[in-house]
Amino acid sequence: MNKLGVHALVWEKGWSHDECERAIAKSAEVGYDFIEAPALDPSSIDIDFTRRSLEKHGIGINFSLGLDADTDISSGDIEKGKRGKAKLLEALTLARDAGATHVCGILHSAFQKSSVPTTAAGVAMSVDILGQVAEIAAKSRITLGLEVVNRYESNVLNTASQGVELCKRIGADNVKVHLDVYHMNIEESDVPSAIKDTGSYLGYFHTGDSHRGYLGSGTIDLAGVFRALVASGYTGPITFESFSSRVVGQPLEGILGIWRNLWEDGYDLASHALMYTRAQLKSATETLRQVERSRLP
Amino acid sequence: MNKLGVHALVWEKGWSHDECERAIAKSAEVGYDFIEAPALDPSSIDIDFTRRSLEKHGIGINFSLGLDADTDISSGDIEKGKRGKAKLLEALTLARDAGATHVCGILHSAFQKSSVPTTAAGVAMSVDILGQVAEIAAKSRITLGLEVVNRYESNVLNTASQGVELCKRIGADNVKVHLDVYHMNIEESDVPSAIKDTGSYLGYFHTGDSHRGYLGSGTIDLAGVFRALVASGYTGPITFESFSSRVVGQPLEGILGIWRNLWEDGYDLASHALMYTRAQLKSATETLRQVERSRLP
Amino acid sequence: MNKLGVHALVWEKGWSHDECERAIAKSAEVGYDFIEAPALDPSSIDIDFTRRSLEKHGIGINFSLGLDADTDISSGDIEKGKRGKAKLLEALTLARDAGATHVCGILHSAFQKSSVPTTAAGVAMSVDILGQVAEIAAKSRITLGLEVVNRYESNVLNTASQGVELCKRIGADNVKVHLDVYHMNIEESDVPSAIKDTGSYLGYFHTGDSHRGYLGSGTIDLAGVFRALVASGYTGPITFESFSSRVVGQPLEGILGIWRNLWEDGYDLASHALMYTRAQLKSATETLRQVERSRLP
Amino acid sequence: MNKLGVHALVWEKGWSHDECERAIAKSAEVGYDFIEAPALDPSSIDIDFTRRSLEKHGIGINFSLGLDADTDISSGDIEKGKRGKAKLLEALTLARDAGATHVCGILHSAFQKSSVPTTAAGVAMSVDILGQVAEIAAKSRITLGLEVVNRYESNVLNTASQGVELCKRIGADNVKVHLDVYHMNIEESDVPSAIKDTGSYLGYFHTGDSHRGYLGSGTIDLAGVFRALVASGYTGPITFESFSSRVVGQPLEGILGIWRNLWEDGYDLASHALMYTRAQLKSATETLRQVERSRLP
Repeated sequence: MNKLGVHALVWEKGWSHDECERAIAKSAEVGYDFIEAPALDPSSIDIDFTRRSLEKHGIGINFSLGLDADTDISSGDIEKGKRGKAKLLEALTLARDAGATHVCGILHSAFQKSSVPTTAAGVAMSVDILGQVAEIAAKSRITLGLEVVNRYESNVLNTASQGVELCKRIGADNVKVHLDVYHMNIEESDVPSAIKDTGSYLGYFHTGDSHRGYLGSGTIDLAGVFRALVASGYTGPITFESFSSRVVGQPLEGILGIWRNLWEDGYDLASHALMYTRAQLKSATETLRQVERSRLP
Repeated sequence: MNKLGVHALVWEKGWSHDECERAIAKSAEVGYDFIEAPALDPSSIDIDFTRRSLEKHGIGINFSLGLDADTDISSGDIEKGKRGKAKLLEALTLARDAGATHVCGILHSAFQKSSVPTTAAGVAMSVDILGQVAEIAAKSRITLGLEVVNRYESNVLNTASQGVELCKRIGADNVKVHLDVYHMNIEESDVPSAIKDTGSYLGYFHTGDSHRGYLGSGTIDLAGVFRALVASGYTGPITFESFSSRVVGQPLEGILGIWRNLWEDGYDLASHALMYTRAQLKSATETLRQVERSRLP
Repeated sequence: MNKLGVHALVWEKGWSHDECERAIAKSAEVGYDFIEAPALDPSSIDIDFTRRSLEKHGIGINFSLGLDADTDISSGDIEKGKRGKAKLLEALTLARDAGATHVCGILHSAFQKSSVPTTAAGVAMSVDILGQVAEIAAKSRITLGLEVVNRYESNVLNTASQGVELCKRIGADNVKVHLDVYHMNIEESDVPSAIKDTGSYLGYFHTGDSHRGYLGSGTIDLAGVFRALVASGYTGPITFESFSSRVVGQPLEGILGIWRNLWEDGYDLASHALMYTRAQLKSATETLRQVERSRLP
Repeated sequence: MNKLGVHALVWEKGWSHDECERAIAKSAEVGYDFIEAPALDPSSIDIDFTRRSLEKHGIGINFSLGLDADTDISSGDIEKGKRGKAKLLEALTLARDAGATHVCGILHSAFQKSSVPTTAAGVAMSVDILGQVAEIAAKSRITLGLEVVNRYESNVLNTASQGVELCKRIGADNVKVHLDVYHMNIEESDVPSAIKDTGSYLGYFHTGDSHRGYLGSGTIDLAGVFRALVASGYTGPITFESFSSRVVGQPLEGILGIWRNLWEDGYDLASHALMYTRAQLKSATETLRQVERSRLP
């Protein structure tokens, strides 16, 4: 069974003690198995407090982050590569201390609107550094999920097949592709096929909808997405992600272009997302079973 | 808010005391507001027992039926018309005594695979008789829902626009169109548009999926269906209907062509359908709200 | 490249010399590679005239038929089985003499609305007889396509997976599954997946839409259908089939339930279907190519 | 009938005499009614040469542009507003001299990835200046199309309903909404509903697909898009837009994030897009006609 999670930005924009406690308490109350916390600034996270809050409420955690221009390991700049590696290792420490199983997001490049394409040398540097980071992650049994995002958020991984290609170049068992339906809707030719083609390289999954609002209120064929996940035999984490100007602040508001108030009440949003996800996973499971059930006498 | 119901054939194939009690108890336990009971043979229904069972479990009831060749009020045969009218009135009595608000189904013609098209005279006779029946139904505040079904189940009403046309010819406030997604998937050019175009003539609605199995496990774009229902402002009953050779027997098995075992466990099926329906209704409501929320500063 | 064909009922309801000549001439004029002619009554077809007309207009032909109650090889009745086999062999002779490559349709059972399920003995008899027929067909290099149709047209093969199962039981290289989107829309849980799962067993394909009218004017996700065909590597015939009360007469009108006038002008219909099919096949081909084109530097 | 056009970037990245002549010749050869030429730098366009080339090949032209940070009329900065107005008037002059009917694109703000939301004062300034520009455009019978784009390309108009709101504030008959399916796929909750709700405010339309490659090779339900256009009674221009790193250069490559080679052969791409568009417009027209054709006897 997939563990179901919710992104912390559904609840809070920061990670002060109060914000951390509220976000974890609500995620647990709604019924999620874990929370995904952004680790864009790992130093802002009090990991002891976080771990105690998780234990108190009985749920798990995973961390996500994106590198920035100054820490871009796909830049080809050695100093930036060193800083990027350090940031990734810092996130790994957080994850290990919090009992996380996955660190995911744009780990392979800068999380920004680029103005020029990436380069072969940049990609090679990213492969090299991620290989080193993966080795350390493996010691804490942590899986890295390389998030495939749209053209406006990275110039390196925009399609699932590129994600698989990068994983193969890195060649570590604990480096997987992290897919997100919001981005797939923009970049993939056929979302269900892309999920199936990713196959066993899929290690982390983000649900959401085309405008990043309520699940099922946008343009994405989510039934097809859940069918592909189930048909692929994917058993990893599935996290609901949604952003509204009601919660998100700078710098994420600017990077993500969150100009609209897509929802007011994160609790209503997250409760619905969980029910919707369970309903669709069951529908998808029964879709497969129909085939088994249609036998000739 | 729409009342949500479930068809009795999800539970039982007949309506003996035991079957009636089990079907009503389970419908209530899952959380439905009402059960839809087939009244193909009204004389087989013990209405006092049924009413007590409904009261005990705190849910409501609606009845559905289809006429047959011998009672076909669209046949143009006066004797068949008389028998058809009598059968409809018998169902009305049942409905009144059970506290039902709706009698629906193929009330306007025979529920069978026809081999020739209907005729103008047959349709006129159906209009005439339904007008008389509607007058009597009005006294018990009962709405008649004329079900639009696929070409293999009737040769009269196959599209929503034909349903609206028949309602207009009858001209009674309590005669409405009863739409069913299973049939719409076969006959309509555009399901959401057909629902919206039916507008205030819509009086009863059947959900289900393309093969009549688990909701969301077939080919129908159910998200579009629920969006159209919500966008139309439809507040009437929504009933989940599903048939498996596990439960259904003759003559329905033969008329409906139920050759496959699409599910084993009606409780699992009905519980999922209710969760799925609630999730989609909420998604549809939020779809409309997104538009309201996108205002310029 | 797939050969593209059109069903004769787009043009004419019979196969007199005039009807045959007009149907073949128009199919060729629009640009189709072949015509699919119904052989419900093989004795009504003048095969020499037909062949000369095909040669004159430079297109090919394939034949389709369905058995009836009296020739039902899945009935378990030995006499009906003999008559059914004779009818299939008669169609094979026609096909051989006309230079056809495929004989398809409901070759395995009666083409009718059944009222009871099929039986294990009936299916076994169908397997046996089709094995014998296939051997004879192989001598003329003719492929048999067993059409999977909806529950109202046969009680034997309703899903693609049942079609594959029957082919496997027959075990002849020239017996393949004949899929039709109109029927798949009703019976399959997931149409693209069913096409892909049929894989190399797919031998003949019918396009159309949910109401059997203009291509792209119904409820079927045809883009997904063409993507699945291309992704499967299917290179066999693709025939456009559509029925309107404007052309079709009895007994087909009755068996198929054609109560509506879905189009007036078969030439307009068939011209559009060809353009639509070519546009979608190209879109599908490019969908696959996008994946190949997204490589990392 | 809608005039069908193609964006010049399908052919060429610049507008030198050679590029202009080739782009116009090919657009005409494929069968388009007009070409849409980018006027990001109006001074680079030799309008006399362009007009002669259009006349020679017998097609029309429309212009599109986006303002930049320095000419942003939604900035609230008076000097930028003046420069923006001057740029828009320069484009109007081009359009008038070339015989164009429409000037469209991001006329109301900067075409860029913003990092902060727009402001009420900025929107008010944009309304004011566009009102003045519209008055001048009206004298040359030119319609302004305000393009609604995704969050990464502007922070002002991201949804169709915002576009309608801006048009209403401007209050000029020749200021209309310019919709683009690529952007709608990201921002709208329901694309067909958004098109229908825009109604008579719709003045210009861009087709394409989710990744901006071959039409029909992405994730967008294009059948639904064309149905909504036809159902709305939209008779204005429809332009196919597609970008590949094969043609597009800086600065557009950077602004648009064109990192992938989505196609190699613009001629193949544009020919297919025209066939695909015609096939879908016809399917959409017939979808509506099915409703008219289903009348009771």
